[in-house]
Amino acid sequence: MLISELSARTGVPVPTLKFYLREGLLMPGTALSATRSDYGEEHVRRVGVARALTDVVGLSVHQARTVLALFASPREELFEALGRALGELPAARVPEADDYPRARAALEHLGWRYDPRYAAVRQLERALEAAEAAGMPLNDDRLDAYAPAVRSIAEHDVALVPEEPERALEYAVLGTALYEPVLVALRRLAHHDIAAERFAPPGP
Amino acid sequence: MLISELSARTGVPVPTLKFYLREGLLMPGTALSATRSDYGEEHVRRVGVARALTDVVGLSVHQARTVLALFASPREELFEALGRALGELPAARVPEADDYPRARAALEHLGWRYDPRYAAVRQLERALEAAEAAGMPLNDDRLDAYAPAVRSIAEHDVALVPEEPERALEYAVLGTALYEPVLVALRRLAHHDIAAERFAPPGP
Repeated sequence: MLISELSARTGVPVPTLKFYLREGLLMPGTALSATRSDYGEEHVRRVGVARALTDVVGLSVHQARTVLALFASPREELFEALGRALGELPAARVPEADDYPRARAALEHLGWRYDPRYAAVRQLERALEAAEAAGMPLNDDRLDAYAPAVRSIAEHDVALVPEEPERALEYAVLGTALYEPVLVALRRLAHHDIAAERFAPPGP
Repeated sequence: MLISELSARTGVPVPTLKFYLREGLLMPGTALSATRSDYGEEHVRRVGVARALTDVVGLSVHQARTVLALFASPREELFEALGRALGELPAARVPEADDYPRARAALEHLGWRYDPRYAAVRQLERALEAAEAAGMPLNDDRLDAYAPAVRSIAEHDVALVPEEPERALEYAVLGTALYEPVLVALRRLAHHDIAAERFAPPGP
């Protein structure tokens, strides 16, 4: 299909598609002439992912390019690529730290395998530090209550990872970023439903 | 205690304490003379909460003042005050919307009580809309997998709400804001632990 059709199929304006091409977020089509190229289904899909990463997840063009480049990693480097791609997500871009004593204690308490280079370790450290600074440190009772619930969510996520490496990375990056706000909103709504029963004034 | 001692107890510099007083984040002490006031344990506690709301949760002074004013609500208005205080938290400040079809469908599917004026409803709508726009709508299977896990987290949270209204509001607001980043980081680490088993290349 021509770029005009790619635009119609994806709902992304032609100037934005040209921007994606120029910035390396979208791979070139097959040249038909000096000024016309042919695009296929892979381009339609890539436009959707590029738009999700920039508009919905909120990555910069540079970050989106880094993530999209990792999508082409060979199968044997999948796990490494996954860690690096997830490290580009907004919440993971926390300052480097020499140590992460709170996160280490929590992860050792839970017996979860972790890689200190993985950005989520620093992310957890920072979250635990903030809770502590606010006078509400996360104690082991709460950790023990949260962990199995979070793990059952993660089990569902991982069970559905597609076989094909590129699709697996797409799923992991978008599924991590897009469902976090859903989970956070659901927790607030669950509080509301539970509290409505416990605290609401009796009806008429 | 004098303001210098309040500063020493809380680790907050005197100029910041004076700013809190001026902006209404901290209630005045008992006047000892034209220039000296006496502060008590309630002030120590309030300084900690004010600092947590502004520095850790990231509220503006105006928002923190709104939240702190709600903390003084009488018991019979507790539930209403709670909803309003939570509506001031960053993630909840999403644009008003006339309708929230995705959130309504999800909440009706789950059978959870909800109040459409509660900010988390719009927050869920927006999160579901973003996932849909990125080509990964949250289907009912995933909702059914996530909901009981999120609810068990929320049950733990609500079970520990203090009796006293002001403490209850403090706990609800700070516990909502501070533990969200912990939960999000834990999910990423659970993915890592589960995926390490499933995808990591075999060791030497």
